[in-house]
Amino acid sequence: MAAPRLTVALIGAGTIGLSFAALHLAKNPACIVKICDTRSDLSEYVGDKLCEYLVDADVEECKSRVQIAESLTKAVENADIVQEQGPENADFKRTTWAQIEQLAPQGALFWSSTSGIPASEQSKDMKDQSRLVVVHPYNPPHVMPLLEVVPSPATSQEVIDRTLEYWRSLGRVPVLIRKECTGFVANRLAFALFREACSLVAQGVVGVEDLDSVVQASMGPRWTVAGPFKSYHAGGGEGGLSSFMDKIGGTVQECWNASDRDVEAGNIGVGQSWQEDVCRQTDKAYGVVDAAQRDKKTKAVLKAVSE
Amino acid sequence: MAAPRLTVALIGAGTIGLSFAALHLAKNPACIVKICDTRSDLSEYVGDKLCEYLVDADVEECKSRVQIAESLTKAVENADIVQEQGPENADFKRTTWAQIEQLAPQGALFWSSTSGIPASEQSKDMKDQSRLVVVHPYNPPHVMPLLEVVPSPATSQEVIDRTLEYWRSLGRVPVLIRKECTGFVANRLAFALFREACSLVAQGVVGVEDLDSVVQASMGPRWTVAGPFKSYHAGGGEGGLSSFMDKIGGTVQECWNASDRDVEAGNIGVGQSWQEDVCRQTDKAYGVVDAAQRDKKTKAVLKAVSE
Repeated sequence: MAAPRLTVALIGAGTIGLSFAALHLAKNPACIVKICDTRSDLSEYVGDKLCEYLVDADVEECKSRVQIAESLTKAVENADIVQEQGPENADFKRTTWAQIEQLAPQGALFWSSTSGIPASEQSKDMKDQSRLVVVHPYNPPHVMPLLEVVPSPATSQEVIDRTLEYWRSLGRVPVLIRKECTGFVANRLAFALFREACSLVAQGVVGVEDLDSVVQASMGPRWTVAGPFKSYHAGGGEGGLSSFMDKIGGTVQECWNASDRDVEAGNIGVGQSWQEDVCRQTDKAYGVVDAAQRDKKTKAVLKAVSE
Repeated sequence: MAAPRLTVALIGAGTIGLSFAALHLAKNPACIVKICDTRSDLSEYVGDKLCEYLVDADVEECKSRVQIAESLTKAVENADIVQEQGPENADFKRTTWAQIEQLAPQGALFWSSTSGIPASEQSKDMKDQSRLVVVHPYNPPHVMPLLEVVPSPATSQEVIDRTLEYWRSLGRVPVLIRKECTGFVANRLAFALFREACSLVAQGVVGVEDLDSVVQASMGPRWTVAGPFKSYHAGGGEGGLSSFMDKIGGTVQECWNASDRDVEAGNIGVGQSWQEDVCRQTDKAYGVVDAAQRDKKTKAVLKAVSE
C-alpha cells in the first residue's frame, strides 16, 4: 500500500517530537509535517536539529515539507493526524485535547505519545472520547519499529483500525494493547528484566558491563528473531511451550522465588542505596554513549532480521 | 590468537553435547572431540545428527576429528578439556566428577554445562575442588555466543583464566559470574521478563504473538546492540543512568509495584491455571518452530552487530 498523502501536526518538539517528524517525513513522502511547540526559537531549533534524525533521507527534500506552526490553532486546523508529545502531565494533556478537539477537522486522528498517562484519563474533558488513542513509541521512533497502540475503553474501532493501518503502511510494527495498564507492555517487560539486572549487580553477582554482555550475547539476538513465547515454545521441542514448562518449570519457579526473596528483602526500590553505586559503575563503564553509532548498528540488526 | 590444538572430551551427547561438539570442531580446527554417552547406538546417532549442527562448516573434515569413546576412561584419559552435559542430577554429577578426576590428566579443565547445579555442589566428592567450573551455554551453543563461567568459591584463578581464554580464542563471549546464585544470570534475567510476559497475557492485556512482536520490535534489537544498563545510560542523555533514574524512576517504580501486585495476587506461579491457556495460545500461534530458520536469522543478526 502506498503511504497516504496527509498532514501531520506534531504538538511538542522535544527529542520524541523531532524523531517522529523524521519518521513521517522519511517514510511517507506524501506528508506535510506541522510542528508546534512553546519554545521561542522553534524555527531555528528545528532547522538545526532535525537533520540529526534524517540520517538516511534526503534532508533538504524532507525539510521542504516541514512547516512551523505559530499556534495550536494553526497547527491542527487542517491536520489529518494530531500527534502529541508534550509534558507528561495529566492536566496539560486533558486541557490540550479538549482544545484540539475544537480546532481540528472532524476526521482527524488524535494520538498521544505518553509513556504512562492512559487515553481514558487524557480524554476526560473531550466531548467525543472515542477519538483519542495512545501511540507509545520505543525510543527513538525513527529507528525502533514498535508502536504500542493503547485505546481507552471509549476509543472507536475505526480510530484503532486507521491508526494500525497508517503505521503498517509506513513499514512499522504497531501492536494493539487490549487493556490500559500501568506502563503499557514494552516498559513493563523491559523494567522487569532491568530490576533483576539491578538486583544481581547490587548483590555483586555480576558487574554492569558483564551483565550487558550477557544480554547482548544471548537474549538480545534471540529475542530479535523470536520473542520469549516463540523462543521457549521452540525450546520445548515437539511438545512446545507446554513441554518446556514441564521440563524446565521447576528451574523457572526457583528463579522467580529467588527474585521474590530479593524484592521482599526490600533493598531494590528506585532511589535506594544500590542505585548510586550501579549508576557510578555504569558511568565508569560507558561515559557518554554514541547514540548515532548505536542507532546505525540497530538499523543493521533490523535489516538483517527482516531479510 | 590461534585456536589451541587439543582434545575435548564431551560427556553426554544430547542436543547440548552435539551443539558443543559442532562448536569446538567448527571454531577450533586443531581440536579432536571425543564423545561419550550411555546410549547404545552412539556411533550411528552422532554420525546421523552431528551434521545438523555443522551448518557452515566442512562436515566431513569436522567428522574426521570426532572419536566415539567406549567408556568414560577412554574418553577422558588424554583430554585437555572434559565438558559434561549429562542429566541434571546432583548425585550423578558429584559421582561423575570424582571419577573423572581419577581418570583425566592433571592439567585438564573440567567444565559442567549445568543450568542450575553449582560447581560447589558438583565438586563435593572431588579431592581437588579447585579444578571444576560451570560453563553454562545459552542454547544452542553452536549459535549463541554467551557462555556463563560460574566458579565455585574453591575454583582456582588459573582454571577461570584458562577457561575464559579458550572461549575468547574461539570468538565466543564468556562472562565471569562472580557468585554462585540460583539460575545464574542469563536465565534469571530472561525468566524475570518471561514472568511479566505470562502475567500480562494471563490478564488479557496482550496476546502471545503480539507480546512477541513487542519484544522483537523493541528490546530485542536494542539489547543486541546495547544491554539494559548501556541503553538506559544512553536514555539519560549527558547525565547518564543517574539522570535517567531521576527522570523516569517514578514510572519504573510504578511498573515494579504493578508487577508486585500481580505476584502477590498469587496467580502466576508455574503450573497454575494461566499456564494451560498461554501454552494453547502459543501452540496455536506457532505450531512447530523452524529452529534452523531461527538459527540462520540469529547468525545474520549477530553478524550485523559485529560489523
